[in-house]
Amino acid sequence: MLQQFTGQDVRMAYVRIADFIRRTPLEDSIYLNDEEHRYRFKLESQQLGKSFKIRGALNVLAQLPRDQVERGVGTISTGNHGIAVSYACKLLGIENCVVIVPFGTPKNKLDRIRFYGARVMQMGNSYDEALTLGLNYIDRHELFYVDPGDRDPRVYAGQGTVGYEIMAVHPKVDTIVVPMGSGGLITGVAVAAKAVNPDVRIVGVQTAACPAVAMSLADYVLYRHYPVLGDTICDAVVGGCGTLAFEMLPDLIDQIIIVDEQAILDAMCFMAIEEQCVIEGGSAMAVAAVREYPDLVGGHDIAIVITGGNVDGEVLHEALDAQLRQGA
Amino acid sequence: MLQQFTGQDVRMAYVRIADFIRRTPLEDSIYLNDEEHRYRFKLESQQLGKSFKIRGALNVLAQLPRDQVERGVGTISTGNHGIAVSYACKLLGIENCVVIVPFGTPKNKLDRIRFYGARVMQMGNSYDEALTLGLNYIDRHELFYVDPGDRDPRVYAGQGTVGYEIMAVHPKVDTIVVPMGSGGLITGVAVAAKAVNPDVRIVGVQTAACPAVAMSLADYVLYRHYPVLGDTICDAVVGGCGTLAFEMLPDLIDQIIIVDEQAILDAMCFMAIEEQCVIEGGSAMAVAAVREYPDLVGGHDIAIVITGGNVDGEVLHEALDAQLRQGA
Repeated sequence: MLQQFTGQDVRMAYVRIADFIRRTPLEDSIYLNDEEHRYRFKLESQQLGKSFKIRGALNVLAQLPRDQVERGVGTISTGNHGIAVSYACKLLGIENCVVIVPFGTPKNKLDRIRFYGARVMQMGNSYDEALTLGLNYIDRHELFYVDPGDRDPRVYAGQGTVGYEIMAVHPKVDTIVVPMGSGGLITGVAVAAKAVNPDVRIVGVQTAACPAVAMSLADYVLYRHYPVLGDTICDAVVGGCGTLAFEMLPDLIDQIIIVDEQAILDAMCFMAIEEQCVIEGGSAMAVAAVREYPDLVGGHDIAIVITGGNVDGEVLHEALDAQLRQGA
Repeated sequence: MLQQFTGQDVRMAYVRIADFIRRTPLEDSIYLNDEEHRYRFKLESQQLGKSFKIRGALNVLAQLPRDQVERGVGTISTGNHGIAVSYACKLLGIENCVVIVPFGTPKNKLDRIRFYGARVMQMGNSYDEALTLGLNYIDRHELFYVDPGDRDPRVYAGQGTVGYEIMAVHPKVDTIVVPMGSGGLITGVAVAAKAVNPDVRIVGVQTAACPAVAMSLADYVLYRHYPVLGDTICDAVVGGCGTLAFEMLPDLIDQIIIVDEQAILDAMCFMAIEEQCVIEGGSAMAVAAVREYPDLVGGHDIAIVITGGNVDGEVLHEALDAQLRQGA
């Protein structure tokens, strides 16, 4: 059993990071509401670095001992987590920050990781290869490894501040819909929200192209790696299930919904054109679930976590293209 | 001569509206910076109602006498101003709010105006017809007319809080680039910023398709109406020059830049794909000026006002389409 965390840990995380992060809006949907349902978007797409990931990174890094700050930190990431760690190090004045990525990582991600000050090192031809080589490098150089949401309860508690903010602003929220990648965010949000109101329903959404958390919970087997089945626009949320998520989620999650890629693409387009809000594929999963399965989502006062806004231009174009051609 | 306003009026406006509005981020550009220039975006695209217009509306409406609040308010608008007035009335508890629009106004604008509570009335076949009929209606029903930025110094002072926030967060900003429609925003921003630092350069940008303010200042003639020359994606900023803007701007504006539609479309696409920030055509004008004429813009520490994010899905699609096909 790993060390777990509580609502109190999330509150402490919030105290620790609140001065650095943005308190992102909880914005009304214009088009999803009906007489019985009110939907609000928690816009982490407007967070620093355009995703919620900085919350977890800051909560860990703000607790590092002085000597470790001087030795530096490192992580392995192809995207939002790498951007978040780089940004967090900048905010906290941690000078030696290395982000290890596989060869072939898109230039716009590398640009952002570098922009906030981290050194980028390319190793291996896939995330798994980069992870093996990168952990070795981090170990040899005595860097602190910033866990992306696998085992470190401090990362989970940091991500959970998203749920803490939702309940602080609208205590009457009765349902929170959360996209799932490794399950770190939903675990944190569930702990935070249920500490305020144990009856809050927590709905997790995952793409059919990589339902790692859903299948881990269904099969009682921790799938630390999970294959990607076909194409997906949810590049930020593919991979395996987090270890701590696997241990804690059975007591926290009320409903799991699997959505297919077409529904996700439609949801991304709906958000861009109707709600006028550009979000990445991983976030569009949650919107897709609300549009496709409102009864499974349930609730009356529903918050949908929009995890990030780092959408690739070509993916956005493809989404608009399909929709507008279909509508024409 | 109309009644003018000062930096003190802007500060008072800020005190009046600060609890209602969002203090929007002043976010680093990832791609525009070089050794000598640092550019930041003032993201009013994340403001309530997705444009800066709510600032002016709130500043006026928060000063209405009680009996006028009970009689109600009205305005004529095809877009962001109408959304802003509706939203401001909701925030202030003004129940009787009428927004008059011409027939043919896009459904997504009507949806948003209605969403915040205003009653929408359709009159006339153009903005000018709607204005004539609407002013008559407003007069007959003893509603308070919410000026969109023509003569009312309270509206100008409210919009000016954008400049106040920029200087409060980064007092070293030496140049502010502002898109111009009627010139209301830039007048307010200039008054606010120069009250903090008289040496701040104020750069106004307008589309070649409707350079009403630029031509009014060049010709010393107030063009209250101005034709739209060809197609434009800057639908939010076409029309004539504001009366008070015309009187005050000659002492406030340091540089005017006219940009063409292709550069604006390119800038919108650059923002969406590279900076990952979706903005409307009017805002893209300012980015286009920085990309096309960096020497005319000048300065070292430059704020670019991103006025709004209400972009039409088809316009965004068109922008991405052109760029990605060109790049392919």
